[in-house]
Amino acid sequence: MPLFTTTRRVQFSETDMAGIVHFANFFRWMEETEHEYFRSLGLSIMQTQPDGQVLGWPRVSTSCNYSAPAHYEEVIDCRLDVERVGVRSVTYLIEFWRDSTKLAGGRMKTACCICHPDGKLTSVDLPDEYRSKIRESGSPASAPKS
Amino acid sequence: MPLFTTTRRVQFSETDMAGIVHFANFFRWMEETEHEYFRSLGLSIMQTQPDGQVLGWPRVSTSCNYSAPAHYEEVIDCRLDVERVGVRSVTYLIEFWRDSTKLAGGRMKTACCICHPDGKLTSVDLPDEYRSKIRESGSPASAPKS
Amino acid sequence: MPLFTTTRRVQFSETDMAGIVHFANFFRWMEETEHEYFRSLGLSIMQTQPDGQVLGWPRVSTSCNYSAPAHYEEVIDCRLDVERVGVRSVTYLIEFWRDSTKLAGGRMKTACCICHPDGKLTSVDLPDEYRSKIRESGSPASAPKS
Amino acid sequence: MPLFTTTRRVQFSETDMAGIVHFANFFRWMEETEHEYFRSLGLSIMQTQPDGQVLGWPRVSTSCNYSAPAHYEEVIDCRLDVERVGVRSVTYLIEFWRDSTKLAGGRMKTACCICHPDGKLTSVDLPDEYRSKIRESGSPASAPKS
Repeated sequence: MPLFTTTRRVQFSETDMAGIVHFANFFRWMEETEHEYFRSLGLSIMQTQPDGQVLGWPRVSTSCNYSAPAHYEEVIDCRLDVERVGVRSVTYLIEFWRDSTKLAGGRMKTACCICHPDGKLTSVDLPDEYRSKIRESGSPASAPKS
Repeated sequence: MPLFTTTRRVQFSETDMAGIVHFANFFRWMEETEHEYFRSLGLSIMQTQPDGQVLGWPRVSTSCNYSAPAHYEEVIDCRLDVERVGVRSVTYLIEFWRDSTKLAGGRMKTACCICHPDGKLTSVDLPDEYRSKIRESGSPASAPKS
Repeated sequence: MPLFTTTRRVQFSETDMAGIVHFANFFRWMEETEHEYFRSLGLSIMQTQPDGQVLGWPRVSTSCNYSAPAHYEEVIDCRLDVERVGVRSVTYLIEFWRDSTKLAGGRMKTACCICHPDGKLTSVDLPDEYRSKIRESGSPASAPKS
Repeated sequence: MPLFTTTRRVQFSETDMAGIVHFANFFRWMEETEHEYFRSLGLSIMQTQPDGQVLGWPRVSTSCNYSAPAHYEEVIDCRLDVERVGVRSVTYLIEFWRDSTKLAGGRMKTACCICHPDGKLTSVDLPDEYRSKIRESGSPASAPKS
């Protein structure tokens, strides 16, 4: 069972002239699943810290394998697992299913960063609040280290 | 030297509230580079065949590693190489550079398919015209097989 | 009270570097509201007819006035009214509200068309099923003609 | 003759399952035409002022009328005229043509604003540099006032 599941309906503007969902949209869906998971933990992906700095989560790497096309109006299950909680990053595994058909699945590694107003990014350690809430949600990182 | 290079300017609508290009756009850029490469060979990515069937190139898998953010109005070099020409697929390596800074790079594997009007896809062998033009453009697959 | 209301949450990829929702997204939201209204009536915006032809609803004209910006994670009410049901078109009025703040509002006129496989469009009369269901939903066109 | 013209090629990801360009993209094209016009004047649409504040141009209202669909790979002429230069706003008329076929045309009114880091906007007078460069480019506002 995945750590977190949400559903979404395919929108018309997400299709292309081949009659199927354009492949780049699956990365937006990965992100929306990640963000909904964060919300379910009471966290936000863009958060102004007490010192006024903005904490964000730019991507380090992403990938997706496509097994079957998605079509307009279909309802898609988005299943998220946390593969790894690092010192300064989190890696997710996310899959998309239509009923019992797997449409696509991929991996997204994000870095915890301070987002400066000029668009520059500085990598920082995960704040304790984020680390503990992700762990408490049942991610593998919550396993005892011994 | 890459097999094919094009440039593009970052558009305002491609940025997000972190002040940088949203990561999913790099996949659109990969595709636009691939399509421009096809056009440079006199090929199109969606082509009605003499028998009325439509030949398209859905994605099998994609990935991207991000090294540095891209910002509004920057001009980005998009560099494409053909990593492999298979019987029914083509795999590209695509990198994005701003001057001497590598922003991101990834891989995109596409399958040659008949796109049916109902959104279904059937995998087929690359037509000879596509295979020979890709080879003649200097892709590794053009090496002698002996 | 509007004819039909739905809600949506602002996604990160819908924001731009000004920190607010990019204005073009409000047109996608108009469309998604229209489509959800159609679904609530048991209709679809892209429907293969018994004769194999595909009925679609391309836009004739659209407009939007912006009063206040929308931000990441806000929940937006999308309120739809049918302004007019013509012989071959439907015109909607759609507004976007965050609690008691009106963010934007506009108009969208759509034409009932046969969408040919080659991307050509032919205007046709609204099928009776569409006309009657829209009327029954309480649109102004449902007023007695006498 | 329009004040400013640029061209663009229709991208695959801009099409939808009806086989034509999704209508919301015309608003992105309007914006990209406006921004290219600004660049041609040596101006930018997002500019950090000497005092550190960021000057931006959010939209007040937009509209578009659609006459003919645009298709994948077509090259589109984007023609911009300045309809009005107000104290705190600029209104553009923008049309899209494929050869001698008008595809669409609309209006976009933008407000000159300070964009605060928290996503709030404050309307301000057009800076002299913007006003004079827009006038010198031949906009109607450059007509003598006498």
